[in-house]
Amino acid sequence: MEIAVLGAGNWGTVLADLAGRNGHAVKLWTRDAAVRDELNAHRTNARAVPGLAVADAVRAVTDLGEALRGAELVIAVLPAQALREVCRAAGELLAPEQYVIHASKGLEVGTHRRMSEVLQEETCVRQLGVLCGPNIAAEIAAGRPAGTVIASRFRRVVDAGRRALSSPRLRVFHGDDVVGVELCGALKNVVAIAAGMATALDLGENAKALLVTRGLSEIAALATALGARADTLRGLAGVGDLLVTCASPHSRNHRVGAALARGATLPDALAALGMVAEGVPTARTTHELIARHGVDAPILERVYRVLYEGLTPAAGLRELLELPAGRDVVGAE
Amino acid sequence: MEIAVLGAGNWGTVLADLAGRNGHAVKLWTRDAAVRDELNAHRTNARAVPGLAVADAVRAVTDLGEALRGAELVIAVLPAQALREVCRAAGELLAPEQYVIHASKGLEVGTHRRMSEVLQEETCVRQLGVLCGPNIAAEIAAGRPAGTVIASRFRRVVDAGRRALSSPRLRVFHGDDVVGVELCGALKNVVAIAAGMATALDLGENAKALLVTRGLSEIAALATALGARADTLRGLAGVGDLLVTCASPHSRNHRVGAALARGATLPDALAALGMVAEGVPTARTTHELIARHGVDAPILERVYRVLYEGLTPAAGLRELLELPAGRDVVGAE
Repeated sequence: MEIAVLGAGNWGTVLADLAGRNGHAVKLWTRDAAVRDELNAHRTNARAVPGLAVADAVRAVTDLGEALRGAELVIAVLPAQALREVCRAAGELLAPEQYVIHASKGLEVGTHRRMSEVLQEETCVRQLGVLCGPNIAAEIAAGRPAGTVIASRFRRVVDAGRRALSSPRLRVFHGDDVVGVELCGALKNVVAIAAGMATALDLGENAKALLVTRGLSEIAALATALGARADTLRGLAGVGDLLVTCASPHSRNHRVGAALARGATLPDALAALGMVAEGVPTARTTHELIARHGVDAPILERVYRVLYEGLTPAAGLRELLELPAGRDVVGAE
Repeated sequence: MEIAVLGAGNWGTVLADLAGRNGHAVKLWTRDAAVRDELNAHRTNARAVPGLAVADAVRAVTDLGEALRGAELVIAVLPAQALREVCRAAGELLAPEQYVIHASKGLEVGTHRRMSEVLQEETCVRQLGVLCGPNIAAEIAAGRPAGTVIASRFRRVVDAGRRALSSPRLRVFHGDDVVGVELCGALKNVVAIAAGMATALDLGENAKALLVTRGLSEIAALATALGARADTLRGLAGVGDLLVTCASPHSRNHRVGAALARGATLPDALAALGMVAEGVPTARTTHELIARHGVDAPILERVYRVLYEGLTPAAGLRELLELPAGRDVVGAE
C-alpha cells in the first residue's frame, strides 16, 4: 500500500515507522526541511523520537502534493488547530477514493468543529476514520506493546488502517462511533490537566481516581449531547486513554496541569513543555460547548477557569471537593 | 444514629471512625478480643490502620447481638467468604426495619451468590445497599479526600449511609444498580491481578491501559449477562476503583499479581500479603460464570489459569497480546 503520513511529530513519526515496518511505501510529510533531511539521510527524527531508527520504507517529504499523490491511505497526525490549513492545501490534491484517518485530539477553536468535520469541509474525501487510544509514542517506538482503536463509518477504512499499522507493537481495535472517539480524544485532555493538578498537589490516589471518574461522567454528558454514544467512553479512546494520561508522566496535558499546580503561569508551562498541549485550547472550546448545551460539568469548568480566569489549581480542586455528591453515573444510555 | 460496623479490618475501622466523627454512636464488631481491647483502651487498631486515632464515639465489641441491637444502620465490611457465616448468626438478631449496607468485594465461592443475595438468604432485612469505590483506607485515615458510591433499591438506605459516612474525607455518591456495583467491585479485582502482573513484568503504561480497558469490557460483558447495567461500569465502582487499583501499590490484588509475575507461588504471595485478596477466589467463580454464560473473556480466563492451572504470568500476557483485536467496546447497551 502507498501511505502518506502528515505530520512528523512523535506520534506521526512512530505511525509512519510502523507502516514502513509492515512493508508499505510511506511518505512522511513535514514542513521542516531539516527534519526531512535528517530522516532521509540518517533514518532518525531525534528531536521527536530519540533513539528510533525509522524503517527504510519511510521517506520524508516537504511537498504536500508529493506526499498525497498515489496514496491509498492518508494518516493525518497534526495539531487540531493546524488541520484546517493543511486540509485546505490538500483539498485540490485529494481524490474521493482516498482514505483519510486522522489522529488529532482536539476541536477547532472558534468553530467547535470535530476534525472529521474539518476534513469534510475542506476536502472531497468522505471515507474517513479516527485513530485514538492509550498510546505513548515513546513506548511503542521502544518496541513495547499497545492497543488503539480506529473508528469509521466504513469498515474498509478501518481495514486499510489495520493493514497499515497492525503489529505486535500496536493492536488495532475497531469501532464505528467516529463522533464518540473524536470527542473522547479531545475532551479527555481537559480532564488530564485536572489530573496533573491533583498529582502535583499530592491529593492522593483516591482523589485522583474520583476526579478522573467524575471527569469521565462529564465527558459522557457533553459527548452524548453532541451525538456520541455513551458506551464509547468505556473503550480505548475513553477509559483507556485516561488511564495512560493519568498514570504517565509522559502525558503533555498532565504535565501542564502539574506545572500550573506548582505555580507556573500558563505561558511558562507551555514553554517548558515545548510541544502542543491540546487540552489547553480544548478547555476553552469545552467551556463554550458546556454553556451552549446546558451540561453540568464542574471539573471541565474549573480547568477552564484555572487556564483562563486566574483560578488557582488548589482553589479549583478545593471547590470540586466541596460540591454536593450526586448520582454516580450520568449520561444518556 | 446508632450504627453497627461489622468487621474491624482496615476499611471497617476507617468507616467506623468516619461515622463516629459524624457524631453517631458506633459499635465496631470484631471477633478478636485483643483488637477490641486495644481499640477501647487506646483508640487504636494499629495492625489494621497504623496511626489512626479512632473517634471516641466508636466502641468495639465482640458480641454480635450487642453490636446489632438498636442499630438503625448496619455496615458489613467482611471478606466475601465470611459474610454468610456472620449473616447466619445475625439472622435471629436483625429486624426488617434495619438498614444493611455491605462493602464486600467478592462473590460466594461455589454458589456464585452476590453479597446482597447472601444477606437476603440469611436475614429478613430487605432494605439493603452496597458501598464501593476508589477507596484506599490508609489515605482516608490520613485525612485525604475520596469519593464512593452507595447503591440501593431504596433511596432511604442511601440517605442513611450518607448521614453515617459523608464527610470532607468521603463524598458519597448514589446509585440504584445494586447488581452492577456488586459485580464491579468483585470482578475488578481479577483485572487488578492482571494489572499487577503487567506492572511487575514492566510491559509499559500503554499495555497496562490496554489490559485494564479490555478487562473492563470483559467485566461489562459478564456483568450485563448477570443483570448489571453497562453504564455502572463507567462509575466509581467500575472505572474509579480500577483507576486506583491499577495506580496504587497499596491494592492487595495488584500486589498478588505482581508477586506472581516475580515468580512467587500463590500460597507465598498470599502469605506475604497477610490479608484477604478477594480477586483470588473471585477468579475461580468468574471462570465458572464465564463458562455458564458463554461470555468471551480472555483476560479473566488467563488470570484464572495463572492462579489455578500453572500458566505463567509472562506466557498469559503474551497470549493476550497475540489475540486478534476485535471490537473496541462490547457489552449490551
